[in-house]
Amino acid sequence: METNRVEAFSDGVLAIAITIMVLELKVPDTPDLHGLAEFLPTLLTYVLSFVYIGIYWTNHHHLMHLTQRIDGAALWANLNLLFWLSIVPFTTRWMDESSLAKLPVLVYGINLLAAAVSYTILQARLIRIQGAESRLARAIRNDAKGKWSMGLYVVGSAGAFLSPWVSVAAYVAVAAIWIVPDRRIERAVAAGDDGA
Amino acid sequence: METNRVEAFSDGVLAIAITIMVLELKVPDTPDLHGLAEFLPTLLTYVLSFVYIGIYWTNHHHLMHLTQRIDGAALWANLNLLFWLSIVPFTTRWMDESSLAKLPVLVYGINLLAAAVSYTILQARLIRIQGAESRLARAIRNDAKGKWSMGLYVVGSAGAFLSPWVSVAAYVAVAAIWIVPDRRIERAVAAGDDGA
Amino acid sequence: METNRVEAFSDGVLAIAITIMVLELKVPDTPDLHGLAEFLPTLLTYVLSFVYIGIYWTNHHHLMHLTQRIDGAALWANLNLLFWLSIVPFTTRWMDESSLAKLPVLVYGINLLAAAVSYTILQARLIRIQGAESRLARAIRNDAKGKWSMGLYVVGSAGAFLSPWVSVAAYVAVAAIWIVPDRRIERAVAAGDDGA
Amino acid sequence: METNRVEAFSDGVLAIAITIMVLELKVPDTPDLHGLAEFLPTLLTYVLSFVYIGIYWTNHHHLMHLTQRIDGAALWANLNLLFWLSIVPFTTRWMDESSLAKLPVLVYGINLLAAAVSYTILQARLIRIQGAESRLARAIRNDAKGKWSMGLYVVGSAGAFLSPWVSVAAYVAVAAIWIVPDRRIERAVAAGDDGA
Repeated sequence: METNRVEAFSDGVLAIAITIMVLELKVPDTPDLHGLAEFLPTLLTYVLSFVYIGIYWTNHHHLMHLTQRIDGAALWANLNLLFWLSIVPFTTRWMDESSLAKLPVLVYGINLLAAAVSYTILQARLIRIQGAESRLARAIRNDAKGKWSMGLYVVGSAGAFLSPWVSVAAYVAVAAIWIVPDRRIERAVAAGDDGA
Repeated sequence: METNRVEAFSDGVLAIAITIMVLELKVPDTPDLHGLAEFLPTLLTYVLSFVYIGIYWTNHHHLMHLTQRIDGAALWANLNLLFWLSIVPFTTRWMDESSLAKLPVLVYGINLLAAAVSYTILQARLIRIQGAESRLARAIRNDAKGKWSMGLYVVGSAGAFLSPWVSVAAYVAVAAIWIVPDRRIERAVAAGDDGA
Repeated sequence: METNRVEAFSDGVLAIAITIMVLELKVPDTPDLHGLAEFLPTLLTYVLSFVYIGIYWTNHHHLMHLTQRIDGAALWANLNLLFWLSIVPFTTRWMDESSLAKLPVLVYGINLLAAAVSYTILQARLIRIQGAESRLARAIRNDAKGKWSMGLYVVGSAGAFLSPWVSVAAYVAVAAIWIVPDRRIERAVAAGDDGA
Repeated sequence: METNRVEAFSDGVLAIAITIMVLELKVPDTPDLHGLAEFLPTLLTYVLSFVYIGIYWTNHHHLMHLTQRIDGAALWANLNLLFWLSIVPFTTRWMDESSLAKLPVLVYGINLLAAAVSYTILQARLIRIQGAESRLARAIRNDAKGKWSMGLYVVGSAGAFLSPWVSVAAYVAVAAIWIVPDRRIERAVAAGDDGA
């Protein structure tokens, strides 16, 4: 089974998830600087979620690039990841509309954690299909970033009981870690492309 | 006529159908556990419909993989299937907003039944185009799962007159049957890929 | 310049236009047969617009299949067509919410007419680029269906001043004409595929 | 790393951004000419934003056509461009709902300016990757249109303090400049296609 249609479908879901969030942005109550100031937190949560989905798309892109074969289980692992990413617009909205109340901030963290775990499951399944000596397996020997992210999500989710800003700081930190695309895979891709 | 653009368009429609449902999720009234508890049934109907569309996407993926040629009638059989899947977000919402009232639960079942019948029509047309000796025809000799599903949809729809939970149980059972992707086709694909 | 990305973008816009209409379907006021009966006209306008966009997708698919080369003017002719199709959900909604009032029914007809004219312009441009001896040019020698459609749209739009049902009848008639895919092109495609 | 999936994802985001704006169009209050007249400015802002996103899609199409290789930085430059384009529906809506108030008109101009700057950054990165002697580099020797656009956006944004019509005139002027697709690239493409 080839990966191109999985990529196309994933691209579709991610493109929609990243774009429809804008539909939910309510325009400021007043067309002045005061209205704009009140709108800023909403915009920033939107930017954060945009960046998150952008990160997943980038990593998914790299991951699939090193994948030649998939199977039915991998399709469902991918759908599972898409599920958690598809509800990011919803948890973002809840967090935002509640003005960073404790529970929605916690739920947002759990959503991101579930997405990270789902990504790890998908990655593990793909490595298993490609084999231990595949380029993919060699590229992901040590998934330090993935582990850091999951740790930070737990910290961020738990931090909601202290202050939402602890959570936001943790979530922003994860985005910062990942915004540099996965050089390990990129190197492997480059090496493979040169070698091919 | 090739299948790639049919796949791309179908991927687009299914990606949107699976994703826009989240736009319709209203955030809980209060940002606390009580609000979250009230929200749970909504989330579960969302999950159920996500899984259904995921199942159709997976099976459509397998079906098209074994299809080399299509014609105008197949295009319309495909559009017919996409129509029924595209209104799943609507019937889901109605069922959910009515708190599982009799008629919306019945309508949801009819929607799923219509999608299943449409899929069978598309499949029959594609088999006819590929020929009785094609890999597709051999892979779908006996469509037991398809028949079970349709039976369960009828049970589920009728069950709405007894209790919505009978219906929900039937609908969940169909999802459970299908969540294992179509091994018959998968085997045929694998065999074909090996043989090619 | 190749056509594949034009197809992908057009597929995206059409997939969205055909799918988002469902977002605008308001659930019936009451979860009973009375509510369902009141909802029927809304469902039927939805079906009609779904069929229209399906027709355009099918014909666009056939048209692009016979097209090897495009240019900047063709890109804009295509965007022009997509514009008119992208506002079909809006004119559909207006017609429906006004309960088939005169002006919205007229505007719906003008929308469909503009889409038909845009399609004709795109087709003419593509024929010009491919050349008078191309398979595309030979397949579209005489565009009887296109001319009938435009005539019926004018009748339907004007008919809004008599009764909305005249308009609806004319719009349904056009859909009926086209629901049979363009056999001329299909024959040419088949001939080309055989000859190739 | 190849460009096809970047194109697919960008097509998805742009197709959604260009299409969902219609979801936000509120139907006229009354189904008569008065209602239609009141609706006209809304329609015109919609058309303007549709044309803008169409322009970006067209130019992106040309740009990617001359691009053979991308890297992680280019992926993020592309996501940055998509971000600014994805919020065009939002700034359009704000400008429209405020009846062209000063601040929203200014913000719309800043949005377009940010998109133009992002496009320039993406283009610069792609030229750097392809090399100074690449077809892309030679095609974009002198980016007069890009510079004119940015100047006009600044004029338009600043003009909001005088009159929204100054802004609108500037924004329409930029669209007019670009609606003619980038002949420089088109010529290079044609030359390359002929030479290939």
